[in-house]
Amino acid sequence: MEEIQENIQFQLTDELIEKVEILVEDEKDKELKDLLNEFHYADIAEILDELDLDDAIYVIKLLDSETTSDILTELDEDIREKILENLSAKEIAEEVEELDTDDAADIIAELPEERQEAVISQIEDQEHKAEIQELLTYDEDTAGALMAKELVKVYETWTVAGCLRRIRGQAKEVKRVHSIYVVDKEEKLIGRLSLKDLIVAKSDQKIAEISKDNVDWVNVNDDPEDVAKVMAKYDLEAIPVVDEEQTLLGRITIDDIVDVLKEEAEKDYQLAAGLTGDVEADDSILELTRARLPWLFLGLIGGIGAFIIMEGFQKAFDTYKVLFFFTPLIAAMAGNVGVQSSAIIVQGLANDDVKGSINNRLIKEMLLAALNGIILAVFLFFFVWGWERDYQTALAISISLIAVIIVAGLIGTFIPLFLDKRGIDPAIATGPFITTSNDILGILLYFWIAKLILF
Amino acid sequence: MEEIQENIQFQLTDELIEKVEILVEDEKDKELKDLLNEFHYADIAEILDELDLDDAIYVIKLLDSETTSDILTELDEDIREKILENLSAKEIAEEVEELDTDDAADIIAELPEERQEAVISQIEDQEHKAEIQELLTYDEDTAGALMAKELVKVYETWTVAGCLRRIRGQAKEVKRVHSIYVVDKEEKLIGRLSLKDLIVAKSDQKIAEISKDNVDWVNVNDDPEDVAKVMAKYDLEAIPVVDEEQTLLGRITIDDIVDVLKEEAEKDYQLAAGLTGDVEADDSILELTRARLPWLFLGLIGGIGAFIIMEGFQKAFDTYKVLFFFTPLIAAMAGNVGVQSSAIIVQGLANDDVKGSINNRLIKEMLLAALNGIILAVFLFFFVWGWERDYQTALAISISLIAVIIVAGLIGTFIPLFLDKRGIDPAIATGPFITTSNDILGILLYFWIAKLILF
Repeated sequence: MEEIQENIQFQLTDELIEKVEILVEDEKDKELKDLLNEFHYADIAEILDELDLDDAIYVIKLLDSETTSDILTELDEDIREKILENLSAKEIAEEVEELDTDDAADIIAELPEERQEAVISQIEDQEHKAEIQELLTYDEDTAGALMAKELVKVYETWTVAGCLRRIRGQAKEVKRVHSIYVVDKEEKLIGRLSLKDLIVAKSDQKIAEISKDNVDWVNVNDDPEDVAKVMAKYDLEAIPVVDEEQTLLGRITIDDIVDVLKEEAEKDYQLAAGLTGDVEADDSILELTRARLPWLFLGLIGGIGAFIIMEGFQKAFDTYKVLFFFTPLIAAMAGNVGVQSSAIIVQGLANDDVKGSINNRLIKEMLLAALNGIILAVFLFFFVWGWERDYQTALAISISLIAVIIVAGLIGTFIPLFLDKRGIDPAIATGPFITTSNDILGILLYFWIAKLILF
Repeated sequence: MEEIQENIQFQLTDELIEKVEILVEDEKDKELKDLLNEFHYADIAEILDELDLDDAIYVIKLLDSETTSDILTELDEDIREKILENLSAKEIAEEVEELDTDDAADIIAELPEERQEAVISQIEDQEHKAEIQELLTYDEDTAGALMAKELVKVYETWTVAGCLRRIRGQAKEVKRVHSIYVVDKEEKLIGRLSLKDLIVAKSDQKIAEISKDNVDWVNVNDDPEDVAKVMAKYDLEAIPVVDEEQTLLGRITIDDIVDVLKEEAEKDYQLAAGLTGDVEADDSILELTRARLPWLFLGLIGGIGAFIIMEGFQKAFDTYKVLFFFTPLIAAMAGNVGVQSSAIIVQGLANDDVKGSINNRLIKEMLLAALNGIILAVFLFFFVWGWERDYQTALAISISLIAVIIVAGLIGTFIPLFLDKRGIDPAIATGPFITTSNDILGILLYFWIAKLILF
């Protein structure tokens, strides 16, 4: 029991890393192996992510390739890249040989093009090699790039007994048997079975009799996000992948989909926060600058726009200087409302939850923004009136606020819907983009309405 | 093949909904049944989400309880609530009887307390009833609330042949067999097996010989997010749940974890956008107001704070009015930088990616913000100098901008780390909270530094 408890409660501690470093330093290979073999490969990968490159390579070369191949798949991408640079084509081919075709293809795809060929040519298992080569032909953003060639396939004409006998062979290559796919003699997918169905069936039954024909599948060119939606909706743990002729090509498993979902959520979150590219807290200052500076620059341009507007209104409002002191409030409200409404739309679009026409959406948002705007404006009115003892200014500011909130809400609703209709990812509309445009527009609208009221 | 194609390419169209509405209206029960039975229950749920309540209830009462029970689990929560209000305790009990214990307990938990007892007392299968009652005792935010009692369990002393014979019975109750859990005579979890292992083993082998003892598990009181992390990290499709004594209580499957991950991502995204509660685009204006107004109010208070600061500096900067026109720029930059740095930390914390001490984090962020700040400030300096022909003002504004960006970055980094250390969800720090506090602080700092430079 002790070992089991350690396994699940794995915590990457400084002590552990230090222990590994000392064992590497002292070249105590046996102790090091014994220590690391206690851990799951995903945990070993976490340890290696923290080691110096030389130490990590030492450990990789020390452990069996059965373990190291799995470790490689779990490493941080930049660490993996550096380690692979230090392995020969032959060594990488040996690692790849141990992996399922999808993981193998992913690792090879990350290599510089000139090395890819060298590694592939060193793969000894010809079938494995051909399958990996096939997978490398699919576009990164397709179901084909996610699928593995490993699956258990039976022909509709087989019997249960014959089937059990034959899949013993196939199943050894497949880590987890989710469904058994039933094909006709032309290799076209026509149904599925579970191992459980096989076990509870009589041994002389024909596969065609016990197979279920309502098998879900995706096309090899489908978008990974759509595959994720289908698998999540129908609670699938694996889905077969077919081509246009319905020929069975491979299967996608839920663990890859969990990764797709996580990456997608992180991407949307980062866009909303004004970060481009896939940055992490541990990236270099230069990488982080690349991800952050463009959006900050956009904000700067917006701020300069606001400055130019305010300068333009300077003379007109010489007697109402107090108006200028409320511009940060107006900008903040316009930005917040815009982000709120765009986030709701972006999330709704992702969940296929946005029904009805764009017009209905906009009318609803207008009512909602008006309701929120009026509540906030009443509060602001009494504050300004109480502070400045000037109910006309208070009225002008409050009415402007309502208008700004309504317009900001409409823009926040419209832009993601518009982008989505144009086939552009609406998530780019949620961050600094919407804040900045709403800031400028809000301030312009504010002075314009105040002018109408006060003069 | 036709049917299969329809199944996966399901699109909820207005025509389909109308067709269903007309069939309900005309009480064409047979046609309606034939039409709906072509679809997956998750698709039927999508159709019902769009129907009037009376029509939806009509459909639910028409279809077999085997299908309707699954449909109920997939409906929108508010639609389900209304439908259940219109079913008798006996009818709900019949639905629940068809469901796995986890789904059954989820549905009962949503009922008003007085109805829960009534429904439970109508469940005929006594074992099912007792299991559901057990599940209802676990806290909503624990592994216990996610798990199902359905699993396949074998004793270490059984033989492969005996095992296969006996699990034929157990497996019928379990929709998907992921792992077979091995327990000792005290029901304590000691290992696992796959169906594949059983099939490839010799029939007279003992379970203890072929079972793997490195079984991952979670405690019944663990946080669902931690369960999700473990399952995603180790690519698990099911994980057994045990109590403090290691007694096997149930299992959690990956489909529930996919839901946990999606909900978690949506919650973080909403918090970053300034939305509380779990709102959707289709919620009522009142629900949306409840989710949005509190954060907008926070923004309003922030704006009033900015106003008070600016009024305070009014006299001092009588000759430098232009400074006031840059406050929206300063506020926007402070807000953007704060959101960027907090988002990176929040995401890093979620992925256990934030290593090293808080001090190191802050030093890194300071360097990063300084680098970004200087680049932006140089640009702003030349703009202001060119526009105002006053290099001193330009210098004051630019130097203030650098300081504001650094401080905003530090606050954005520190607050989520601080909240996390205190056991508070750091995601609340990413939205209007950080923007508003950075707005005020940024403007204050800006005037303060400008004063130092200009006077």
